Amino acid sequence: MSVTTALGFRAAGVTAGLKKSGNPDMALVVNDGPDFHAAAVFTSNRVAAAPIHWSRQVLSDGRVDAVVLNSGGANACTGPEGFQNTHATAEKVAEVLGLSATDIAVCSTGLIGEQLPMDKILPGVEAAAAALTADGGAAAATAIMTTDTVSKEALWTSPNDAEGLSYSIGGMAKGAGMLAPGLATMLVVITTDAGIDPDALDAALHDAVRVTFNRADSDGCMSTNDTVLLLASGASNAVPNMDEFTKGLTQVCATLARALIGDAEGASHDIAITTKNADSERDAEIVSREVARSNLFKAAIFGNDPNWGRVLSAVGTTDAVFDPDKINVSINGVQICRNGCIGDSRDLVDLTPREVTVEIDLNAGLAEATIWTNDLTHAYVEENSAYSS
Amino acid sequence: MSVTTALGFRAAGVTAGLKKSGNPDMALVVNDGPDFHAAAVFTSNRVAAAPIHWSRQVLSDGRVDAVVLNSGGANACTGPEGFQNTHATAEKVAEVLGLSATDIAVCSTGLIGEQLPMDKILPGVEAAAAALTADGGAAAATAIMTTDTVSKEALWTSPNDAEGLSYSIGGMAKGAGMLAPGLATMLVVITTDAGIDPDALDAALHDAVRVTFNRADSDGCMSTNDTVLLLASGASNAVPNMDEFTKGLTQVCATLARALIGDAEGASHDIAITTKNADSERDAEIVSREVARSNLFKAAIFGNDPNWGRVLSAVGTTDAVFDPDKINVSINGVQICRNGCIGDSRDLVDLTPREVTVEIDLNAGLAEATIWTNDLTHAYVEENSAYSS
Repeated sequence: MSVTTALGFRAAGVTAGLKKSGNPDMALVVNDGPDFHAAAVFTSNRVAAAPIHWSRQVLSDGRVDAVVLNSGGANACTGPEGFQNTHATAEKVAEVLGLSATDIAVCSTGLIGEQLPMDKILPGVEAAAAALTADGGAAAATAIMTTDTVSKEALWTSPNDAEGLSYSIGGMAKGAGMLAPGLATMLVVITTDAGIDPDALDAALHDAVRVTFNRADSDGCMSTNDTVLLLASGASNAVPNMDEFTKGLTQVCATLARALIGDAEGASHDIAITTKNADSERDAEIVSREVARSNLFKAAIFGNDPNWGRVLSAVGTTDAVFDPDKINVSINGVQICRNGCIGDSRDLVDLTPREVTVEIDLNAGLAEATIWTNDLTHAYVEENSAYSS
Repeated sequence: MSVTTALGFRAAGVTAGLKKSGNPDMALVVNDGPDFHAAAVFTSNRVAAAPIHWSRQVLSDGRVDAVVLNSGGANACTGPEGFQNTHATAEKVAEVLGLSATDIAVCSTGLIGEQLPMDKILPGVEAAAAALTADGGAAAATAIMTTDTVSKEALWTSPNDAEGLSYSIGGMAKGAGMLAPGLATMLVVITTDAGIDPDALDAALHDAVRVTFNRADSDGCMSTNDTVLLLASGASNAVPNMDEFTKGLTQVCATLARALIGDAEGASHDIAITTKNADSERDAEIVSREVARSNLFKAAIFGNDPNWGRVLSAVGTTDAVFDPDKINVSINGVQICRNGCIGDSRDLVDLTPREVTVEIDLNAGLAEATIWTNDLTHAYVEENSAYSS
């Protein structure tokens, strides 16, 4: 269940020496074809890292032959030298694999504002290329981890078509903080052996990301390096129905997005905030997101306190269509707020399980959206203060 | 230095029994005239508490004779019964003081989603009325505290005018969490003995609030109960120059706003984030506010870590006019980011003092704005989880 499940892909994860811990920190994923189609979604942060600028150019013709990823340094806010380092990394991959640098995507993650140690990156590329195997997906998934406590992989396989052909969609992801809208501090590589042209890949990827990664909001902070790459080799000979493909891709993205939230820095609760009966999907999404970003609400959930006033006060700051006197809120199935007023007893709410569901009924329409987030904990503060850096 | 410094005002603070702690929890401020002019700014939260709905009506004719304030319960999300309770409180004040209920403003603060114990509120009003004195300002400031650790007061006195007359502006505030834009979980009452009509009062108050309370952003959460009330008695016989009055009022508001930030829940650093050389004041404000709302940045400051990448990544999520390669960032005077890239060494930044200044130079214009915020600490999480409720 990884980026090497789909036919036509090899991968590797090695230790280049970028991390003080000595853990693996460089991954390589190679598409051996016959197709080299690709689509991507990048961070919308206007302070974008050097690898984002580079990879946007690489993706412009819809072709990617390989992706090189490093943890241990974001290569963001590093100026012309940082961009030259990304370029040199791609050139090195091209050289050792006999490819063109303009078909090599680059991803980086780690601290912003430090130059990458190229004396370690370039030998790391050679080591990764030498380690490429058709079952290297798990090693690659491990090498891209930063503060992640577990590696994240997902797989979906299509049913056989009329000709007995099927295809797979497999992915890996990293990210544990700075998880917010328009992606997160996350790198995601998804591969498929279906035969799909770049335009259709792009449409499917945007559809899937919109309702998965873009609805995971751990801490409201958007990274400079977010990348979701989708590579298609066509090696299965299956040409998919695009509705089916998009559904499978969305499932893979949702699994990875949930895994990111489930491993978010210091979290003790995973919270699904669903706004239903909204006037529009946009309204449902902004209401859920506003609650997901309330530190007061998130701290209350950490303390197992069903403080629904903090839900209502967050909802009230949005411009969504609603009547304050017609809002219902349930936490873990108990309707503690009814018609904008006191509902069932807070004491009935059991917040000891890790999974928490918050349901906000706006009574204003038919649309619905869910945002996944976490609680705000001592451990989040600890991990993100200097004690951990 | 309080709401009773200006001539024409009496105040009191008493214990009605709303707080389990037994601390004072009910305040009353009375204007004895000769003018009864008033202006107010209320929360823009669409889930507004019952006293907000009531007081908006009271203020509609620009006249307020008295303000009654309770801590120990927000009377928000309490439905028709909550509104009736606010009304009954105003009626009680009117009865004991011989006034009209429609000239009595009401403010409440505390937990959302619980009905007020009227069997304690109404006797509390009687006790407060009996305790009214011309030096009761400090007692009133104490009675409106919730998680505040100190009461907050401020005073400004005008120079003598050509006729030897001067006037005072004195205020009190409460608020320690849920401090965000469009006010905070805060109640503020400001009094003056200047002679000013309600329209001019309103204009001055909005000018002052815009650059003070609305730029204090402790945790991005906006309350259902925020109120800033300004009462003018005219008792000094001074008729002020409005530029001078607005300047004095802004100073009082700024002092109170800084006091709120200085006492914010669990904070260990007070952070002033100034964005300068912006294309517009709006751009400067949103850039500073976005940084002020980054949990990652706030946690880094808690850990004395000058992690400027978290400043840049927050700036990058805004739509302000800037070129990422022309941004400079200084923390406590050290320019650690120059032209969007690595500047002076992080090691030069001393973050041990409580006061922290962050200066973001967008190099895009001439406008400037400062947002005041705090760091994100273990104590904030602790105070806002169930452990404290």
